[in-house]
Amino acid sequence: MPVFLLLLILSAMMDQVVYQPIGYVESPFRHPTNVPVQTVAGMNETGKIILEDKYKAGLQDLKKFTHLILIYHFHLSKGYTLTAKPFLDDKEHGIFAIRGPRRPNPIGISTVKLLDICDNKLMISGIDLVDGTPILDIKPFIPEFDNRLDASSGWLNKTKEEIECKKSDDRFALNL
Amino acid sequence: MPVFLLLLILSAMMDQVVYQPIGYVESPFRHPTNVPVQTVAGMNETGKIILEDKYKAGLQDLKKFTHLILIYHFHLSKGYTLTAKPFLDDKEHGIFAIRGPRRPNPIGISTVKLLDICDNKLMISGIDLVDGTPILDIKPFIPEFDNRLDASSGWLNKTKEEIECKKSDDRFALNL
Repeated sequence: MPVFLLLLILSAMMDQVVYQPIGYVESPFRHPTNVPVQTVAGMNETGKIILEDKYKAGLQDLKKFTHLILIYHFHLSKGYTLTAKPFLDDKEHGIFAIRGPRRPNPIGISTVKLLDICDNKLMISGIDLVDGTPILDIKPFIPEFDNRLDASSGWLNKTKEEIECKKSDDRFALNL
Repeated sequence: MPVFLLLLILSAMMDQVVYQPIGYVESPFRHPTNVPVQTVAGMNETGKIILEDKYKAGLQDLKKFTHLILIYHFHLSKGYTLTAKPFLDDKEHGIFAIRGPRRPNPIGISTVKLLDICDNKLMISGIDLVDGTPILDIKPFIPEFDNRLDASSGWLNKTKEEIECKKSDDRFALNL
């Protein structure tokens, strides 16, 4: 039996979901410390998504959008805790109330600016991703769907300027 | 060898990512036709996320937020195409330029309104999800991180009112 088929059957038996990365990030950040804590803190940082060649046709008309939502696997994250201190606060919060990587399913989302697409390479800015991060999906950011002008900020009490200057420390990287 | 361990080893060998749902959606929509096409089209629809009991501690302080980002598996989606017609346009676009479910990795994201949390149940409104959808992650919507007021809408040329009235047809549900 092919390994892939075996994997699918076993996953279904266990109610699990299996994904295959569609590409990878090339970024100036080689280690998860000193990375912008959110894309809004990394507006001047540029990088690339290298998409698997076989998915290139899926990029048709994407260039009409200025922003993308990236969905990716926090590949350096090991295990999880149900509460943690985020970079932007000094109190513990539930893992579903923060954006840190040590989550039950270590999935990350980032909205980045799309600068250009060249063959299977997407040039992006506003990067908060470590080099080599596996990309699971790319979606267009559509302001009519994705902006929420009436949303509150929960525990966050930092100004835009404070967020923009914030870099990650080693709290989630200690075991690497 | 336990099945779980075997699965992990096989997945790593194949560069795959394995996730386990953290909970499920309870929604009035039993079938993927006639569902609001985006959460902005389902503002009056309410539903619940039933979180696995073991993750309850991860909800601490989540109630301080008005909106959540749900990351989920399009469990009814079979296979993928690299181009498709979205519900809100009559032209084909690349799969990474639309939000449809038949994607290489069938991952969905929805920003919903959080009404209340009661034990392991999250009451939400603004629902565009089919009943039973497996939830992979819950993140707080943080306006400072997630709004992009300068983003363009790409191919989308519908008014807010047209989007709000739009329901899904059976184009992605034909094989169910």
